[in-house]
Amino acid sequence: MKTNTGRFFEDFTLGETIRHATPRTLTVGDQALYTALYGSRFAVASSEHFAQAIGYKRAPLDDLLVFHTVFGKTVPDVSLNAVANLGYAEGRFLAPAYPGDTLWSISEVIGLKESSNGETGVVYVRTTGFNQNGERVLSYCRWVLVRKRDGASPAPEPHVPTLADAVQASEIARHAPPLTIDSYDFDLAGSADRFSDYETGEKIDHVDAMTVEEAEHQLATRLYQNTARVHFDGMAAAQGRFGKRLIYGGHVISLARALSFNGLANAFTVAAINSGRHVAPLFAGDTVSAWSEVLETCPLVGRDDIGALRLRTVATKNRACADFPFKDGDRYAEGVILDLDYWVLMPR
Amino acid sequence: MKTNTGRFFEDFTLGETIRHATPRTLTVGDQALYTALYGSRFAVASSEHFAQAIGYKRAPLDDLLVFHTVFGKTVPDVSLNAVANLGYAEGRFLAPAYPGDTLWSISEVIGLKESSNGETGVVYVRTTGFNQNGERVLSYCRWVLVRKRDGASPAPEPHVPTLADAVQASEIARHAPPLTIDSYDFDLAGSADRFSDYETGEKIDHVDAMTVEEAEHQLATRLYQNTARVHFDGMAAAQGRFGKRLIYGGHVISLARALSFNGLANAFTVAAINSGRHVAPLFAGDTVSAWSEVLETCPLVGRDDIGALRLRTVATKNRACADFPFKDGDRYAEGVILDLDYWVLMPR
Amino acid sequence: MKTNTGRFFEDFTLGETIRHATPRTLTVGDQALYTALYGSRFAVASSEHFAQAIGYKRAPLDDLLVFHTVFGKTVPDVSLNAVANLGYAEGRFLAPAYPGDTLWSISEVIGLKESSNGETGVVYVRTTGFNQNGERVLSYCRWVLVRKRDGASPAPEPHVPTLADAVQASEIARHAPPLTIDSYDFDLAGSADRFSDYETGEKIDHVDAMTVEEAEHQLATRLYQNTARVHFDGMAAAQGRFGKRLIYGGHVISLARALSFNGLANAFTVAAINSGRHVAPLFAGDTVSAWSEVLETCPLVGRDDIGALRLRTVATKNRACADFPFKDGDRYAEGVILDLDYWVLMPR
Repeated sequence: MKTNTGRFFEDFTLGETIRHATPRTLTVGDQALYTALYGSRFAVASSEHFAQAIGYKRAPLDDLLVFHTVFGKTVPDVSLNAVANLGYAEGRFLAPAYPGDTLWSISEVIGLKESSNGETGVVYVRTTGFNQNGERVLSYCRWVLVRKRDGASPAPEPHVPTLADAVQASEIARHAPPLTIDSYDFDLAGSADRFSDYETGEKIDHVDAMTVEEAEHQLATRLYQNTARVHFDGMAAAQGRFGKRLIYGGHVISLARALSFNGLANAFTVAAINSGRHVAPLFAGDTVSAWSEVLETCPLVGRDDIGALRLRTVATKNRACADFPFKDGDRYAEGVILDLDYWVLMPR
Repeated sequence: MKTNTGRFFEDFTLGETIRHATPRTLTVGDQALYTALYGSRFAVASSEHFAQAIGYKRAPLDDLLVFHTVFGKTVPDVSLNAVANLGYAEGRFLAPAYPGDTLWSISEVIGLKESSNGETGVVYVRTTGFNQNGERVLSYCRWVLVRKRDGASPAPEPHVPTLADAVQASEIARHAPPLTIDSYDFDLAGSADRFSDYETGEKIDHVDAMTVEEAEHQLATRLYQNTARVHFDGMAAAQGRFGKRLIYGGHVISLARALSFNGLANAFTVAAINSGRHVAPLFAGDTVSAWSEVLETCPLVGRDDIGALRLRTVATKNRACADFPFKDGDRYAEGVILDLDYWVLMPR
Repeated sequence: MKTNTGRFFEDFTLGETIRHATPRTLTVGDQALYTALYGSRFAVASSEHFAQAIGYKRAPLDDLLVFHTVFGKTVPDVSLNAVANLGYAEGRFLAPAYPGDTLWSISEVIGLKESSNGETGVVYVRTTGFNQNGERVLSYCRWVLVRKRDGASPAPEPHVPTLADAVQASEIARHAPPLTIDSYDFDLAGSADRFSDYETGEKIDHVDAMTVEEAEHQLATRLYQNTARVHFDGMAAAQGRFGKRLIYGGHVISLARALSFNGLANAFTVAAINSGRHVAPLFAGDTVSAWSEVLETCPLVGRDDIGALRLRTVATKNRACADFPFKDGDRYAEGVILDLDYWVLMPR
């Protein structure tokens, strides 16, 4: 069989390492497309001049463009037969990636647990993205619910990995880029609000909203070489669970991050993803809004120039965020589609 | 309040200067997207080889990509609460911009006039775009009708600036790039018609037409980091004046310029914008056509290689331009959406 | 008349050479857009590192991006008044093209044959694409059915050129790039199947499928500066033969090639196009699938590192390819839109 129809639950072995195809050189062309897809305005990825002024070699690629590229490579090997993408944890951005860098990735199977119905199982992987020099640029865990090829095949010994609730501040300090923040220009960055202006518990409605078109999410998802059929095949989707194409969850993360500029303009880089959950699916024609809560403010050891904010950014569809919709009791509120817990860096 | 909800009329002071976020490095990636969005074929921005042959350092960025980028930065500070974009004047392209250049912009408030209803006011700004070396690449005036925060707040002393009807030919001559036009290849540029072949009063139907999709204008407008909500938020737009998303007026200008290639192929660069008026709104699904009239032909002092044509380009929606639709009496004709008066340079 | 309304059948002379506008510098920006439009994953165009490891100067532009760019230039001169694009033959990729290369093209009229109805005629051209150094990068023949300006004008002496059924393997060997295939990494390329694993007569269903949106094919076709009105003008199209915009045939070829990755991952470059036929039109909203048959496997003289596979790739709309739809008797089967016969190179 020359065609890849994807791995089923039985095809994963605890501890195995999968080296993914296809390496991808990201360029200024990819960064331009990323800007056109989300309208991101964080100054460091937008301006060579701004980035160099504060100590970057040049304008780095948007953190989430790096995430989606590394993620996209894992799809043919990990999630082609996934029923659901259950969550992310321990995501750490380890080094900036720059236009011209070639990214590739590997995944280690760190957990397996068959579902009680015997039809599916949860696969846990830790994926690491590298550049052309073999330096790690990103590491994260995700777990997905994958179909079994054959309901009758025996269940593996269950193994559920212990994953941290949040990436430690010490980890973030270790991987934060060396910067010369005294050259950071708050006017040009778009806001006077810095690290010390944010407080734990503070909530920010990001006000703006974007309606998503089929062409947009398809262009994005192909840019990341993510091949999951549910995003592209309208004919099959018409027969499927939703009756239409499903938008790649990462597209929602990028929309939410871009919307969050309005209120978090100086959150110039994403340092870590503590946990992420795609609460409900997004479809073309839906309008995405977002709000954020400051979960924690954390000075970084050895850094008097920058601090880390731990944020929860919630994205909704077809619902404005002035009332900060999140949960009704135990359940996510109507319209919530993303619950993302992550660390950003901000000048002090 | 960390979220920018935009300035209201009361927030502008005559003579103040606003330094806008976010600087933006434009690259070959942005130029490629610009080509994909409009299909522009003017040889100088299309070919490194052609551009260098006639004396450019390399292929410059499309003039209107520069305009939209400089303009986009002003939106969060100037027109987030605009009811209407009323007009442009005194637009001058002062130096070519190249891939790799970082653009940023400032605006000076040069006029204020409250409306008689006390609900809105006209704000006049002169915006200047700079590159990373602080060189001016573009300057233009625009005036917008902006909502007041509070109808009861006192009106400022009215001040309406005097704006030139058209940029002077001497200004254009001063900023025209030094070129070696004898190496200009008319075959490769797509037409044998040069400066001396055009006559005042001549009208040209550009024949071609383009239907605009939501995904296209959204990609364009985000590429320019223009954040005006009316272009993106379909949910809010459904409740608004038009019931749907409004297309950024600059998108129409770029479509008209790209369509004008067919008939003006050697108009290799835009030198100035004398005035521009968005006569009616454009929406996704509409088809844009264009025609041009030569308003003036002007040799440039000290330049025997190039001349300037002053053009009126009129764009329409859902109406072909074989009959050169413009005005019916005092009013713009049905279907007219853009009335643009500008100078282009052409080999003599 | 300054506007180009295109040549009619009477305007072509046997043996004449047309030098086309507009030269086009293709960059990493265009390559990024190409990836976003099709999701192509062939390793050589995807990764600088991979390409250099096997002997390319750097990551070459996708072969079909080169094809579409060279083709696009011919449209204003050859096919603006075409009723149908009838076929391709003798397509040969002669040298890799790289980001930064400037492509331009010429066409020689190699055949003319008026139709029996006296209303149209077939024009045969051989188009050659060059880079900025005058090196040939691509050559192909195509023939189109073009309207006559005047049914009464006399028919030219009919001349139908003799075109090869397929490009010879010796031709392919001569133009195959020198490579160091021992550094080819099959894991990173996405499949262990190499030249020797494919057999004549083997059929491969590429499984995946993509639904095409108006914005996507318009972006693509403008990227190639292909100006054929049928692809863009929805207002005119509503009155036309199909009642809607027609998708550029080359868009289908690129979709089919990208889909073919799943089953042909190591077919790292297209060497030649033997024949191509657009069997039926594609419209926005249709879903494209594809399958391939191995027509011939051919070791290349003097090359023990790579071999050539001759493939037929068939694309369909709104029909899956598990049953390999092709012909029902003499006629193409329902849903077939493309019949493409071409050579690819693969490591042995």
